[in-house]
Order: sequence, then structure tokens, then C-alpha cells
Amino acid sequence: MTVGSGARTEEDTQAGPQAQVWTLPGGLKVAFERRVGPGFAFDLRVPVGSAHDPVGQEGAAGVLEEWLYKGAASAAGERRDARGLQDAFDDLGVRRSGGVGPEATRFGASGLSADLPAALALVADVVARPALPAHELPVLLDLARQDLEGLEDSPPDLLAAEARALGFPRTLGETRAGYAHPASGTPEGLEAITAAGLRAHLERYGQAGSVLGLVADLAPQEAHDLAARTFADWRAGEDRPVAAVFRPRGRLHLPHPGGEQTHLSLSAPGVSPRSADWLPWQLALGALSGGGSSRLFVAVREERGLAYAVSASPLVLGGGGFLSAYAGSAPGRAPETLAVMLAELERLPRGLGAEEFRRAHTGLSTGVVFGAQSLRGRAHALTRDLALFGRVRSVRGLRAELNALTLATVNAFLAGYHPAREATVVTLGPGDAFAPYRTVQEVGA
Amino acid sequence: MTVGSGARTEEDTQAGPQAQVWTLPGGLKVAFERRVGPGFAFDLRVPVGSAHDPVGQEGAAGVLEEWLYKGAASAAGERRDARGLQDAFDDLGVRRSGGVGPEATRFGASGLSADLPAALALVADVVARPALPAHELPVLLDLARQDLEGLEDSPPDLLAAEARALGFPRTLGETRAGYAHPASGTPEGLEAITAAGLRAHLERYGQAGSVLGLVADLAPQEAHDLAARTFADWRAGEDRPVAAVFRPRGRLHLPHPGGEQTHLSLSAPGVSPRSADWLPWQLALGALSGGGSSRLFVAVREERGLAYAVSASPLVLGGGGFLSAYAGSAPGRAPETLAVMLAELERLPRGLGAEEFRRAHTGLSTGVVFGAQSLRGRAHALTRDLALFGRVRSVRGLRAELNALTLATVNAFLAGYHPAREATVVTLGPGDAFAPYRTVQEVGA
Repeated sequence: MTVGSGARTEEDTQAGPQAQVWTLPGGLKVAFERRVGPGFAFDLRVPVGSAHDPVGQEGAAGVLEEWLYKGAASAAGERRDARGLQDAFDDLGVRRSGGVGPEATRFGASGLSADLPAALALVADVVARPALPAHELPVLLDLARQDLEGLEDSPPDLLAAEARALGFPRTLGETRAGYAHPASGTPEGLEAITAAGLRAHLERYGQAGSVLGLVADLAPQEAHDLAARTFADWRAGEDRPVAAVFRPRGRLHLPHPGGEQTHLSLSAPGVSPRSADWLPWQLALGALSGGGSSRLFVAVREERGLAYAVSASPLVLGGGGFLSAYAGSAPGRAPETLAVMLAELERLPRGLGAEEFRRAHTGLSTGVVFGAQSLRGRAHALTRDLALFGRVRSVRGLRAELNALTLATVNAFLAGYHPAREATVVTLGPGDAFAPYRTVQEVGA
Repeated sequence: MTVGSGARTEEDTQAGPQAQVWTLPGGLKVAFERRVGPGFAFDLRVPVGSAHDPVGQEGAAGVLEEWLYKGAASAAGERRDARGLQDAFDDLGVRRSGGVGPEATRFGASGLSADLPAALALVADVVARPALPAHELPVLLDLARQDLEGLEDSPPDLLAAEARALGFPRTLGETRAGYAHPASGTPEGLEAITAAGLRAHLERYGQAGSVLGLVADLAPQEAHDLAARTFADWRAGEDRPVAAVFRPRGRLHLPHPGGEQTHLSLSAPGVSPRSADWLPWQLALGALSGGGSSRLFVAVREERGLAYAVSASPLVLGGGGFLSAYAGSAPGRAPETLAVMLAELERLPRGLGAEEFRRAHTGLSTGVVFGAQSLRGRAHALTRDLALFGRVRSVRGLRAELNALTLATVNAFLAGYHPAREATVVTLGPGDAFAPYRTVQEVGA
């Protein structure tokens, strides 16, 4: 295929002058941006994450990702064992990135330009031709158990896992475990994982739904051909997203008798990345939690000194967008902290003032310029854009969209946005301020 | 002063074609690098950190840094209260960075070029003309106490604080608290902090020993004049580093009955940034802990599955360099984990093989290229270089130094490097494997 032929997708025209998007014959999508300089970065996103773990084998995607790196064959048939593969990556001096998230597993690398073909080939070896040696599996399962135990020692991480479990319970009849468990799995899930089960699970990994973001100093045709050649014989795989169904108004307290702080997690509905309300919502989140004069920071920390840390951010799961807020508070002040956070959410429908709109707008615009700086960051943004938004958002295009955004648009959106009513709250800490919620409850709407 | 006159320091000639270094009449050093593009970043490093906290007022630098942002006057006499100052930063859309470290306090910002003069002026207001309103202090002390309590809920952070306390005890006769406490202070120290005490402490903050790293799309003369004008009337301050004296062969176990993991911290002597052995040491650390085929990773995790996370990194304190290693292990395997880590340190004097030298060398070289990418990262590197190395290391110069580094040089250094003999170890976890070390001990040399 020649770049520029009819095989290009409709995203090209939206991607701005620099980014190019191609769909390869096998289904893999590639988003490429040329960057003059000595380095490259890429980020391969395979749409199989911890949400796709088979029910009862929670942790499968996490263990499988580690197992993939325990040896692989090259396209030419050269076999590398675990040590040989590690050495091959280290010989190139590339820095690897990635890991398992709820929706996808990512495989990334960055390094010096001359090493791009070799680094990309190694990652293709890992996903397409892994050795999966059975003797390595017990150690990996053991490490996964240790990782899971480590979660117990970190209250904020434990809280995040429990908040996910309460806010996004498994859908009835779904054979995939969904969003209710952390990527490291569950003790029972890890116990049930077998080599045969993981090998079957790997059949889902392939070109369908996968996205390769690539930033390098190459002509577009060279970049295209490199990606096409490297992944030519990767299996089809499957692209079956797991829906994230939010459970509203849940309430749970996890006692932590020896703890010094009470940690609060609040989840609420938000806006999908593909919705026209996405940018208005982002701007509102900036006003809520984007700087020293943002509403949550001022109300919780500056005016009342209730919590050292408080924040709210967007969470994208299963194609949907959700609001996720956190605070860490002295136990005696946790109820007031929660009340103040909920009050700030409750007054969102009354809209933003002109000043705070302007500040949040400036903050978003600056963030767009700075987010595109690093090769690694840009490669990840290309991949993420294509996966979540269905198109690559160019820096110029995104700034134009932002410039077109008015206070009236944002306030029209906010008038119908009532996250406080639906919020699901999980708390973890000492004392009995939240004792009534030691079992899962639904609070009044 | 005109850039290029005799007032330039000797660092200029070493800084490569892009970076320029000036010492302003008041003492402030400026390291500037021109970068064509829409953004700027700067990083002001004031050589007063938590180590300079007066004995008995541990936490002073941390609370003072927060207090500085509670209002300030501009050079023209305009007064901003806490809210006005936050709004002024947010109006510019700049992202702030910085905070209090053991040796220094940093004040940084990044944003769009047109806002550089205003952003730099705001930071100058904060350090040179803060309002320090007494009524804000109780809330700040309260937040600092909450921050300190949060430390108790995070075993790795608590371990790091205790390891610092054991490895770097206060020097006898020193009136400054040194490295034995975390930046957030101690409960007793926070209790003793007063407005008058903090105001007196602020007299130490000034141009002496301070460094401003600046990356922007400006002509060097413009950059120089902007910095000179903005900080012209900042007080002299004082530059009195606190020496970090390492206590070797210390041993301590902190029982954590409910914990799921045992966390291990190991500190040992290293190499000072100004020593000719710095790069050989960095390379050796890369072979020890720089990638999937590094010695610690292979020995602890890959071959034995002893710990999910294991790493070693350089720690620079008081102008000295130290080795700092960490592992998180299942409690029953913690003694073996520690033994394997020590064994890896013990065999360092026998030198590296050609292959692992080459890999570590490639890793370091690639890191140099990637580290210079982002504006924020480069501004911080300029400041750090000037403060720690006494000169700005250009990317080109650093690569040349690396290219000149041979296996023979590294192995000649390693032959005399015996970190295992001097290692100080702190453990935190459940069980009684380390019970004999519940009080501070010195182990045999």
C-alpha cells in the first residue's frame, strides 16, 4: 500500500498537518507523527485489559503480560529465552513503558532513531510469537501475589481498588470479570490461573482494535511500511470492549483501626470522550480541581484546612467517562470533608463565573501545548486519542476547539450535570464516624 | 551588565553552545538555554531545605514554603492576599512546580512565552516580598501535621524517613536539624514553630547560593536582563550547606504487625557529583539496577522471585553521593532478599563484564538524550547541574564524556568500591525475622 492511497481512513483529514492515521490490512491502526530529532517513541495499545480477565481468573492479563516477556521468537525464527529477550532490549538502550490497565495492555519503547526497527520488532515478537515457557509461570504467579499483598499496605491504593469494586460491579451474565478487581487480580483468581488458560486468553490479543502510536524522524511512507512489515503476521485477535456500568449512590466504609488518616473516594457519572460535552466537562473539572484557586482546593484545604490533599479527575472506563475524587483527611474531620466535597459538586449546575471560566480555559490551553512536548508523551497521546476519541486530536485543532468554547456552552452543560446526586462513596480509616456504612449500602437519591 | 562581558563565570565555556551561565551582582546564578517554541520553564533553587530547619523546629522549611504563597507584594508595591496570589498564578495558566527537599527549596513554573515575565515576577514576589500573614499559620501547621500523619499510613515512605534518620544522624554541635527528619517535620518540631521563628528563618533565603534555571525562546541578553531586573532587590541570604555524615553499618527493624510485606532499605557510601568517579559510579549503578538484565533485578526478581520491586539509585545529600536501595518482599523471604542484595553489592569490586558494561553505557547515553526533551525537565537539569556539579553539562558534552568512559576505568573504580561493608539497613514489616534489630545496632564491619 502506498501512503495517501484510498486505504486511508477518515481520521486523516482531522488529524492536522503532522499526524497520519492508517489502518493496516490486518486491522492494526497506526497513528504516526513525524518529529525531527535523535529519538523515537512508540506505544502499542492492545484492547485487552484486566476487565477482560475471565471470571474466576482475575489477574490473567497482568500475569500474561509478564509471561510474554519470558522469551519470544523473531519473525526470522530466531528464539530468545527470557534472559536473551531482556538482553536484546537492554542492548538497544531503549526504555520500555506500558503495562496492564482496565481496558487495554500497552507495550511501549523509546530510544535512539537507529534502533527503532529493532525495538519495534522485539515488541512484535513479544505480542505475536511469545514462548510462554511453563516453568516460568509459578514465579510470575508468586510475584503477582506479592504485588497484591503490597496493595494491602497502601491505604490509597486499597481504597481505589475498593471504590472500583463498589462503583463498577460485574454485569450479570458477563463471562469477563470487568472493572471490579485491580489489574493485579484477586488471591482466588491467581490461584485458578493455569498455563492453558493464559494461552487461550492470548488468542484475544491481535490486530483488531489495537493501535500503534509512533513518533519518529521518518518519512510517512517509511513509517507506514515499517509498521506494516513488522506486524504483518500478527494474528487477528478480537476487539470486544467491556461496558462499564456505574452503580450510583453506593456507600461503604472500610475500617482501618491503626490508620492515621481517613481516605475518601467519590465516584460519579461524567461525560464520554466521544460526546460533544467532553470539553465543557473537562473545563468544569479544571474549575473544580485544576489549580490553587479551584473550588475543591479552596473550599476543602485553603478555607477549612480539612485535608492535605484533595482532587477530582476524569476517569475513562469502557468508553464512558466518570468523575473520580479523592481526599485524605484527619479522621475527625472526614465527615465534614465529605460534606464539603459533595456541596461543591451540588453547586456545579449553577454554573461557573466568568473569572473561573477564564482561568480554567487558560489552564487547559497551556496544558495542550505542554502535553505534546515529549516523544513518549506524544506517542501515548496518539494511541489514546485514536482509542478513546476515534481520531487524533492535533495540538492546533484542539486549541481551536478550546478557543470556540464559551462560558455559555459550559454553563448550559453544567445546568444538567448533577454528579452529587449519583455519587458513590467509599471511605477507609480509623474511628467510627462512618461506622454505619461497614456493609455496602445505597444512600437516598 | 552586557552578556558576554567579563562578569561571566568560568562555567560558560563548559556549558556547550546553548547554555549560558551568569552570576548577577547580588549573587544569584542564572543558567539559561534558548529553546525555540511556544513555551517557557524556569526552576529557582534556594539552598535552604529541611536540613536547615533549626533544631527543635523540624518542619520549618516546609511550613514556610506554604506560608510564602499566602500573599506577597509586587516590586511596584501592589499587594496580593492568598487568594489574589493564587488567582494571579492561575490567570497566567502556568503550572507551578517545586517544593522542599533536604538541601534546597525549589520554586518553578512553566507556561506560554508571553507570560514568562509575569510568572517570574510572581515567584520573585513570593520569595522576596511575602506577606506572611499570622492568621494563616495555624491552618498551615494543621495541614503539615496531617501530611506527617499520612506518612504513617505509607510503609515505603515511613521506611524512607526512618532510613534517613538512621543513616544520617544529626552532627553534634550543629544548630540545624540536618537530614534525620522528613521535610514534613516532626510532631514536636511543628508544635514549636512560631511566626517569629519562621520570619527569622526566611532571612536565610536570598541570592547567595541560589540558582535560576531558565529555558525560553529569548535572546540571551533579554533573558539575562529579565532575571537581573526581576530579582534585583532580593536580599543577600546565606549559603551554608549542611554536611551529610553517613553512619555506616547501622541496623534497625520497625515492627509492623498488620503489614503484608516487609520493606527493606539499604544505604551505603557512593560518589560525590564533583568527583571524577561520578560517571563510573553512575554506570556501575546502571549495571546494578538499570534494566531487565541488571544484576539486582535478575538476582532478586527474575531468578528467585523474592520481591516484586527491587532497585538501587544514587542519593545526593549535602554535596555527597550515596547508594540507596529498596525492596518490598514477602515477610518470610525478606532475609534472603537482603542477603542477595548484599551479595550483589559485595561482588561489585570484581568489576563488570564487557556485555553489561556496554548495556549500561547504552542505557546512560540514551537517557542523556531523552532527559533534555521537556522544558520543565531541562530547566530543572540546568539548576541541578549548577548546584550539584558547579557547571552546566551540555547534552553534547555529557555524551562526549560518556564516550570516553571505558570498561577499564569503571572496573578500576569498582576495585576500590565496597558498599556492602558499610551498608546501613532498615526493615519494616510483620513477623520476627528481623526481631533482633528492634533497637538501633551496629553490625560487624
